[in-house]
Amino acid sequence: MRIVIALGGNALLKRGEPLSAENQRRNMRAAAAALVRACEGHEIIIVHGNGPQVGLLALEADAYKALPPYPLDVLGAESQGMIGYVIVQELRNKIPTRPIAALITQTVVDEHDPAFQRPTKPVGPVYTEAEVQAIRAQSRWMFALDGASWRRVVASPEPKEIVELPIIESLLQSGVLVVCTGGGGIPVCRQSDGEIAGMEAVIDKDLAAALLAERVQADKLVILTDVDAVYLNWGAPRQKALSRISASDLRSHAFAEGSMGPKVNAACSFVERTGRLAVIGSLQQAQDVLDTKAGTIVLA
Amino acid sequence: MRIVIALGGNALLKRGEPLSAENQRRNMRAAAAALVRACEGHEIIIVHGNGPQVGLLALEADAYKALPPYPLDVLGAESQGMIGYVIVQELRNKIPTRPIAALITQTVVDEHDPAFQRPTKPVGPVYTEAEVQAIRAQSRWMFALDGASWRRVVASPEPKEIVELPIIESLLQSGVLVVCTGGGGIPVCRQSDGEIAGMEAVIDKDLAAALLAERVQADKLVILTDVDAVYLNWGAPRQKALSRISASDLRSHAFAEGSMGPKVNAACSFVERTGRLAVIGSLQQAQDVLDTKAGTIVLA
Repeated sequence: MRIVIALGGNALLKRGEPLSAENQRRNMRAAAAALVRACEGHEIIIVHGNGPQVGLLALEADAYKALPPYPLDVLGAESQGMIGYVIVQELRNKIPTRPIAALITQTVVDEHDPAFQRPTKPVGPVYTEAEVQAIRAQSRWMFALDGASWRRVVASPEPKEIVELPIIESLLQSGVLVVCTGGGGIPVCRQSDGEIAGMEAVIDKDLAAALLAERVQADKLVILTDVDAVYLNWGAPRQKALSRISASDLRSHAFAEGSMGPKVNAACSFVERTGRLAVIGSLQQAQDVLDTKAGTIVLA
Repeated sequence: MRIVIALGGNALLKRGEPLSAENQRRNMRAAAAALVRACEGHEIIIVHGNGPQVGLLALEADAYKALPPYPLDVLGAESQGMIGYVIVQELRNKIPTRPIAALITQTVVDEHDPAFQRPTKPVGPVYTEAEVQAIRAQSRWMFALDGASWRRVVASPEPKEIVELPIIESLLQSGVLVVCTGGGGIPVCRQSDGEIAGMEAVIDKDLAAALLAERVQADKLVILTDVDAVYLNWGAPRQKALSRISASDLRSHAFAEGSMGPKVNAACSFVERTGRLAVIGSLQQAQDVLDTKAGTIVLA
């Protein structure tokens, strides 16, 4: 079976946990342990998030005053290198005989996407309100509440095309486990002269994974996160986990933007466009989620 | 013909030029223009340097005090993402029909390599002597003179094995132009339990390119830099460009460590191990250097 796995940034870095190299490696080691048997016998693409990391890279670049800040496309590329390396290394240490590749991937967006006027994607660490006020006073960064905490938000345009698609297909056909489209892919646009150029944005990795799953004709899109299912009334006393639901029924409910909302949207998009299955569940239960024995199964 | 091209960090960033994203992109655009016709009709691997960039990433990470500094393997991976992205994008804009991939690549070194006791590889920007003294007072970074300027130096162990070699071979056979082993590859060692783990080092990209060229059975190793040939008595009134020379004759001369020395060493290693050709020349004359009509040709 050909399966695209979207691995949440929050699965790699617990909420509020410092973004140290050590924390990321420890979490990825646990993620690799959870993934390794689930991947056996399948053609696998792993698409990872980069929200916390790309925000950190922006902070680091900003803290070093000798240079103008790097644009988000370049920082996204850095995060693909950093996270892709750790994923490849930790997976390889569990399955040394399987070839694994981390591929730098660009994703085309529309430069007129309205998202550029309305930033929604949270990146970087969590802040207190006082910290937010201090940063706002000296930069043009924008912030929004993510749960109970403030985070920086950036534009998150819709992914339209995966530039490296033919290479991903060729690697899959050679039996390679492919780590790609990290952080939703490096955001680029097609200019009128046919050239592509980087954009100041961070693409939603679940939507990019859904697009990639559609384009490589995956049998299944699997979205792994830190909760075991999609819940109605999440956090309320009468919260209810969904086990099987149609895309149209799932679309009729509202979910938190910047959190479960994009995952639900991505799962529904894939199911609606392809008629195939999507599953949303927890990384810790990766094998059962891939086998559609756990998580929320989204059907046509 | 199958050709490995080593692209100097100094070809991507002029000496002393600020490490801004814009400068790197402009230089890479010029490099792509120089490379594009030279690559036509050949199987091509591009190995880029990362000395200035990995040093910058270390400085940025260091400037952001909320986290412990990231180790050099992770920073090397970030630099592969950043530089690989820019190379792929600029080349693709010149040759949109050719598939181009930037692959995150790990290079195995020996954890007992004596280089870990004696740092020699310059990374990051140039410093004045006063700046060096200020940094030395508050860190364990080591510095050395690179030409007339001070730079940070780190351990540069010998590359032994390219972890992603089978994937690189498979991409080449699919007609993909492969950008890989950036910065010499992310330094890792094989532990006694068979697992691989990151190391605090920056591998010489020319030596890694020579190893890779040997392992993929390349017909030619081409080392492109900012001078048009290897010179005897460089900088002296009687300096003399070498046009054709045997590896053993070339070995009998001394060249600047951290500059022409590693290039000469890498070219000689490849020629000695394979009996094939290596060429050292300027990026601006890329096509003539690839055709062995310019540069210094090193023969068995």
